[in-house]
Amino acid sequence: MTILSSWKDKALFTPGPLTTSATIKQAMLRDLGSRDREFINTVKDVRNRLVALGSGSDEYTAVLMQGSGTFGIESVLSSVIPPDGKLLILVNGAYGKRMLKIADIHKIPVVELAFPENTQPEAQVLEQALSADPVISHVAVVHCETTTGIINPIETYGGIVKKYKRAYIVDAMSSFGAYPIDLKACGIDYLISSANKCIEGVPGFSFIIARKEALAATCGFARTLSLDLFAQWEGLEGDGQFRFTPPTHVILAFHRALVELEQEGGVVSRGMRYELNYGITLSAMKAMGFKSYLEPHKRGYIITSFYYPDHPNFNFQQFYELLSEKGHVIYPGKLSHADCFRIGHVGRLSSADVRALMAAILETLAEMNVELTKV
Amino acid sequence: MTILSSWKDKALFTPGPLTTSATIKQAMLRDLGSRDREFINTVKDVRNRLVALGSGSDEYTAVLMQGSGTFGIESVLSSVIPPDGKLLILVNGAYGKRMLKIADIHKIPVVELAFPENTQPEAQVLEQALSADPVISHVAVVHCETTTGIINPIETYGGIVKKYKRAYIVDAMSSFGAYPIDLKACGIDYLISSANKCIEGVPGFSFIIARKEALAATCGFARTLSLDLFAQWEGLEGDGQFRFTPPTHVILAFHRALVELEQEGGVVSRGMRYELNYGITLSAMKAMGFKSYLEPHKRGYIITSFYYPDHPNFNFQQFYELLSEKGHVIYPGKLSHADCFRIGHVGRLSSADVRALMAAILETLAEMNVELTKV
Repeated sequence: MTILSSWKDKALFTPGPLTTSATIKQAMLRDLGSRDREFINTVKDVRNRLVALGSGSDEYTAVLMQGSGTFGIESVLSSVIPPDGKLLILVNGAYGKRMLKIADIHKIPVVELAFPENTQPEAQVLEQALSADPVISHVAVVHCETTTGIINPIETYGGIVKKYKRAYIVDAMSSFGAYPIDLKACGIDYLISSANKCIEGVPGFSFIIARKEALAATCGFARTLSLDLFAQWEGLEGDGQFRFTPPTHVILAFHRALVELEQEGGVVSRGMRYELNYGITLSAMKAMGFKSYLEPHKRGYIITSFYYPDHPNFNFQQFYELLSEKGHVIYPGKLSHADCFRIGHVGRLSSADVRALMAAILETLAEMNVELTKV
Repeated sequence: MTILSSWKDKALFTPGPLTTSATIKQAMLRDLGSRDREFINTVKDVRNRLVALGSGSDEYTAVLMQGSGTFGIESVLSSVIPPDGKLLILVNGAYGKRMLKIADIHKIPVVELAFPENTQPEAQVLEQALSADPVISHVAVVHCETTTGIINPIETYGGIVKKYKRAYIVDAMSSFGAYPIDLKACGIDYLISSANKCIEGVPGFSFIIARKEALAATCGFARTLSLDLFAQWEGLEGDGQFRFTPPTHVILAFHRALVELEQEGGVVSRGMRYELNYGITLSAMKAMGFKSYLEPHKRGYIITSFYYPDHPNFNFQQFYELLSEKGHVIYPGKLSHADCFRIGHVGRLSSADVRALMAAILETLAEMNVELTKV
């Protein structure tokens, strides 16, 4: 039983941890000293590749931070906002709310601009807020709100933020590596993402791509030791080492993942594969009678939210378990106002994997005696 | 060249990341969903095994925390001390000083009792401080100060801390898994250690073994979101899931490492292997003319500090590189007052690995034309 379950892992249609390639995992079969030259050179190459992915300009730098994506977000919010700073957060989902929570715990003054989960924050409202309040020093937004899969127009917001000369923080956790993002064109000062998302590494650290000039001005602002972004940068720039033990194996996997991203043809090619997965999912789900939560033009190709079918026999937990037994892991919803589940399109998944899930969903609906009205 | 270097990794005579077994690394060749039952059950088993290693009493619980060991220390210090609390820290090395730094950044009032790096903090001084200052709510100490390798008598301090009814925090980063520690007998409320130390996992998280009754009283004290120990515990106790993405692969390796620790015969057997590594190192180094920094009765068998040889041709960086080229990684010193380097005795290293290092050191001294006076 254990041998069988190890033989082939379930395919992960989740927002992460994701299914990764065998070769990325095999890169972890080594023990390198964290102060040894080979490891230090690997970290340097990882940082250079991240900067290249984000803009290619030497005005930017990349810093790795131990922990999950949230650790990276907290690292930025608790490290770059000065004691007299004020943070405006555009909120249209759970991850925007999480930033509010972080600001709150660090007693950072906040302006919250909240929007319904099925709409993108309005640029005009942002502009009004910035023009009305000169004390706002930083603006933060989530690029792809994994709550719904909505894509927020970060370049539009960036133009406004720069017009009013504020600093701009973008949570690109679920999108970086699958959507082309030019930090300079978007006016981004700090972009945060994570190892186990669209770059297809394994979980264990997050990373921040920062505009050097902005980051250099934050010395002494940090409200923690472990998550001190400036000090972490200083360490990596100094002797190339981490201040505190890095997840060496996870970083080796991430380096391999960056090489494989390049081999796939870079961010655009990867985005096309994910978009294909998304397209197959959407048409099959629609054909089965499922309805997606967002309007088409707001949806990204990272993850899609579907309403629970309106049928008395449908029970999400049972649906989830039956699919899991067949080898496919989907994801519960996180919406405050609607019963949804989510299907991710990212990770090392092919069209064949997606079609296998679609066939399994059809079979499972039959097992549960859920008949849906076809559109 | 790349193939050759991957063929056999260098042996790590460091305080971590350490050399681990092939089977522990192979446990990472799987992608499990972080909300999937198999992973949740693995986390549960890891937590149970940790409590069993630390005391076996159900008065304790184990919480995993993403990040390095320092993240675990900061999690405890920033989460369990109430707003009106005061922390006494016994300091005789760099890791004691790091706790001071953490308390400082979180504006936690501190009493520092500092002792020279080659001496154990005096129990009597602790007792005087506690009897003189009833506001001190928590006492913290490092068990094995990796700075020197000194072992501090945590049970003696624990008796005093309990006599004065304060809470007791022990940083057992480098010792847990290799020295038997009975949390109850030592009066420990919070013990912190890390995945990549004597349990021989790979780096990526730390863990805290806590007395449930103490931890349960800390709700609302946390000064960060990511490192909130109470909330992390609540999550793991609730649906068994982490609040934020866990390093799934690293946790699978750690589970395997706990199984292999049991197979080796548990903490006592593992301690005996490390002590054997230590014994071989000490006699060979002494025979070559090296002097160790600490007096014998203060030394542990985790890591040993040796003085730089008093010879004009000795250059540590060169010595380090020549050994590294031969496949052995040693560790620089961290002492404030003496020039030392360190050799670790922990990780998946056998007597043969240690003897190979000793032979390499002898050869390297000859290459550097360093002749030492034999004792």
